[in-house]
Amino acid sequence: MPATRLTFGDVLRDHRRSYPDRVALVDGDTRLTWPELDDRVNRLANALRGAGVGQDDRVLWLGQNSSRVYELLGAAAKLGAMVCPGYWRWSPAEMAFAIDDFSPTVIIWQDTEIGETVRAARERATHQALWIQHDAAGPGTYEDFLASGDATDPDLEISPDSALLVIYTAAITGRQCGSLITQNNLISMGVSVAGVGDIDADAVFLNTGPMFHIGNFQFFGIPTFLVAGTNVVLRRVDAQEVLTVLEAEHVTHAYLMPATIAELIKLNEADEKDLSALHATFAGPLWNGVIKDDPSRFARYGGGIGQGYGQTELTGMQILRGFGLGGANAGRPNPLLQIRLLDADGNEVPDGEPGEICARGDVVHLGYWNRPEVNAERWAHGWWHTRDLGRREPDGSITFVGTLTRMIKSGAENIFPAEVEQALTRHPAVREAAVIGIPNERWLQDVKAVVVLADGATATEAELIEHVRGEIATYKKPKTIEFTEAIPRTAAGATDYEALDAAYGGGNYPGGTSLGAGR
Amino acid sequence: MPATRLTFGDVLRDHRRSYPDRVALVDGDTRLTWPELDDRVNRLANALRGAGVGQDDRVLWLGQNSSRVYELLGAAAKLGAMVCPGYWRWSPAEMAFAIDDFSPTVIIWQDTEIGETVRAARERATHQALWIQHDAAGPGTYEDFLASGDATDPDLEISPDSALLVIYTAAITGRQCGSLITQNNLISMGVSVAGVGDIDADAVFLNTGPMFHIGNFQFFGIPTFLVAGTNVVLRRVDAQEVLTVLEAEHVTHAYLMPATIAELIKLNEADEKDLSALHATFAGPLWNGVIKDDPSRFARYGGGIGQGYGQTELTGMQILRGFGLGGANAGRPNPLLQIRLLDADGNEVPDGEPGEICARGDVVHLGYWNRPEVNAERWAHGWWHTRDLGRREPDGSITFVGTLTRMIKSGAENIFPAEVEQALTRHPAVREAAVIGIPNERWLQDVKAVVVLADGATATEAELIEHVRGEIATYKKPKTIEFTEAIPRTAAGATDYEALDAAYGGGNYPGGTSLGAGR
Repeated sequence: MPATRLTFGDVLRDHRRSYPDRVALVDGDTRLTWPELDDRVNRLANALRGAGVGQDDRVLWLGQNSSRVYELLGAAAKLGAMVCPGYWRWSPAEMAFAIDDFSPTVIIWQDTEIGETVRAARERATHQALWIQHDAAGPGTYEDFLASGDATDPDLEISPDSALLVIYTAAITGRQCGSLITQNNLISMGVSVAGVGDIDADAVFLNTGPMFHIGNFQFFGIPTFLVAGTNVVLRRVDAQEVLTVLEAEHVTHAYLMPATIAELIKLNEADEKDLSALHATFAGPLWNGVIKDDPSRFARYGGGIGQGYGQTELTGMQILRGFGLGGANAGRPNPLLQIRLLDADGNEVPDGEPGEICARGDVVHLGYWNRPEVNAERWAHGWWHTRDLGRREPDGSITFVGTLTRMIKSGAENIFPAEVEQALTRHPAVREAAVIGIPNERWLQDVKAVVVLADGATATEAELIEHVRGEIATYKKPKTIEFTEAIPRTAAGATDYEALDAAYGGGNYPGGTSLGAGR
Repeated sequence: MPATRLTFGDVLRDHRRSYPDRVALVDGDTRLTWPELDDRVNRLANALRGAGVGQDDRVLWLGQNSSRVYELLGAAAKLGAMVCPGYWRWSPAEMAFAIDDFSPTVIIWQDTEIGETVRAARERATHQALWIQHDAAGPGTYEDFLASGDATDPDLEISPDSALLVIYTAAITGRQCGSLITQNNLISMGVSVAGVGDIDADAVFLNTGPMFHIGNFQFFGIPTFLVAGTNVVLRRVDAQEVLTVLEAEHVTHAYLMPATIAELIKLNEADEKDLSALHATFAGPLWNGVIKDDPSRFARYGGGIGQGYGQTELTGMQILRGFGLGGANAGRPNPLLQIRLLDADGNEVPDGEPGEICARGDVVHLGYWNRPEVNAERWAHGWWHTRDLGRREPDGSITFVGTLTRMIKSGAENIFPAEVEQALTRHPAVREAAVIGIPNERWLQDVKAVVVLADGATATEAELIEHVRGEIATYKKPKTIEFTEAIPRTAAGATDYEALDAAYGGGNYPGGTSLGAGR
């Protein structure tokens, strides 16, 4: 009597039967029902098998967003293989590194916009693979390759715990590592996010987030796929095109950045497209009432999506206010996830004290591809170590304190930049603040703050230090403060601590070198 | 890099941390927060361990509904053991059979209402166990036993695929068999039903369904437990007590039978309790607007709970209109379930043709305790055979056609009673109809209908047979019709086909002997 557990391929096998007329994927002129998608997935799986792709083998996608990434996930799932949607903004050197590191049997690539980079990376990489272009017609291209495969389901026995989706991230280790996300990770994440996010078979999700990032798949590509909704894919974000597709496809959910939302609102003033199907699921307040409210638990418990904590390695944001009752900034974990706040010896820290956020459960990845030493370290004591710090509040919810790598050590004391920054910005004259650690031979580090004053406001260094002393424990107060016009930001809009360290002489962080942002 | 999957015990371990002040269980004067519950579960687990309960060992509950059943599930989960909440309405002989068949290491029993039956069963059974009374105080009773255990978490490595909840059912085999429901079955069912049923940490579920039945756990005991809502338990249903508790505990969901709902509405006319927290989740229309609408997907896709198909062996109703887009009477499967409609050789039948409903996936049980031959047969071709018949409609949804055991065979043709009964009741003179098969040496069976006419209506046998001939294929029409005053019913209100066979000479069913209802 074996337990039967479903794979990602099994989900497709049932959707073709249960939803024969429903559209699974839309991409430009391509519209695929579930049976059409599953037929293409079978052909692709058999073609890949013919090209030597089997259990644990790898396929690399070097292109922008495409419905073909979903086809590849389906085909790889049926073979027990892995798919990595590469970062199309990689430099040739970075792309070549990924090719050699991931060592895929097959690479599907795109000429439009990134052909030059891909060709340069191919020159540079030493690993040999079968290269297939997807944005061209004729022999050897994607459609030709797919058509060469038989439409019969390969019907192999595959473990739900095999890796399927691989996402490269440099956020934690400072070096690109491929996070191995299993079929069970995707299914477990999908069913729980579908429940909390109110995603069902009527959902139409516009894949406007990049597919090299877990966010687009979590919000809401995979949940939509799992419950047989429709995934609409745009190659890249163009506000006018987004607006057209939002109306034409009756999109219910979209993953949009604040700048795009602002552009959409402005464009639609003239255009007056009908966006009545769309919920304000992502960044709701920014829509300013233009579209209807989000009915999901994300909204009900405040903060919306984005209010929480996660990383690629947890299959996304898995501590979310929507999973519990709201609570502190990160919220509470997905019920399919266990969280412990541990000290360096693997013991739980007392409530109220910061500890490393450690995780295990059905949404936690296997580890990184090809990094046995890193994995051994990060899986210490049987828990995945996120390298981020959290604090358990009296109500049980979790506050994300900061990254372990940015923790400042002064004497025996641990100081978290976020806490000092928050104390500073509570002063009426302070608009923004960022805190770094300056090497000190005796104390290891001193606290330094970089402050932007509010328009027309004045405050002295001594006055602000005294203010912090009244707000938090005195050892946390900055020793020095510099005033500046603007805090440097990363492309993603986060404080660029690396730039601050470089500009003001930061260093000696006990958690490791400064890794920058971009998570 | 092992995949880490959660057990039912892990869920408790995290809830005590994430929801320290929230109430997990209410039962009379007992109110347990999650940490209090987990402490009791640890004590109970350690006490059971001391009594010899380990991996795959068994604990039998011979009592009515109690919060202690949840405690036992938690304790058994942490030991990899199984808990069976026995049917307290069993006769002494049936109870003795279950004791010998399940051969538990420990039996927890209740004196109130069922003490006489339990004592008689204990006399009769040959299996020896540690007997612990739960509704008494003092040495050797439940509270004393629990208190003897250490509060330290046993922290054993347990497989999520081990059996945890065992529910005896005679619906399919005609003989009591214990369905082995795993930790993963409960978690997978819980997270999917929580999503579709809109159950979250604010949910308060009144356990008014019997705990020897999967229904109460599916709707909504386990989903509520999984997402850290509150389970309120009543020993048995008393309408006045239900009404009091609905108001006092701000109950949001309850599992109530139509007769109880009618009684509650009547009682509340005088009493005017505040039921504003309660949703009309179960049997919504019967409430007649007395309580507020159900916001869940069950309601959105029509039919509410109860509209669907399931069995204990699938961890409940897992083909439900709420899982898909409505559709035919059963709806579509849970995304964590695969369904195939198979013929006797294990091949899929064409769409539109009836086939046996076969299943695999995360909500399908392991098989029956101690029934290797039955399990081998029912798991033929790697699919769990439900012994029920379904038909795939053009839209992909599934119609439940009837039980395989009730299928009538006349010549080469398969005839399903439900179809003939529906054709008959479309005649204006017919109030109710039931169809059985009468042995025929040449054709195996003939179709016979038993009909109750509408008040004051008249119709002849020939007229009704002719009517059916105009509605469905002619070979399906009854050969004979008997008129009667009432169709015999089982205790659960279903047509009692066994009684009909006995009264009218039914038999020769190709799917096996008549098993009666009571599923």
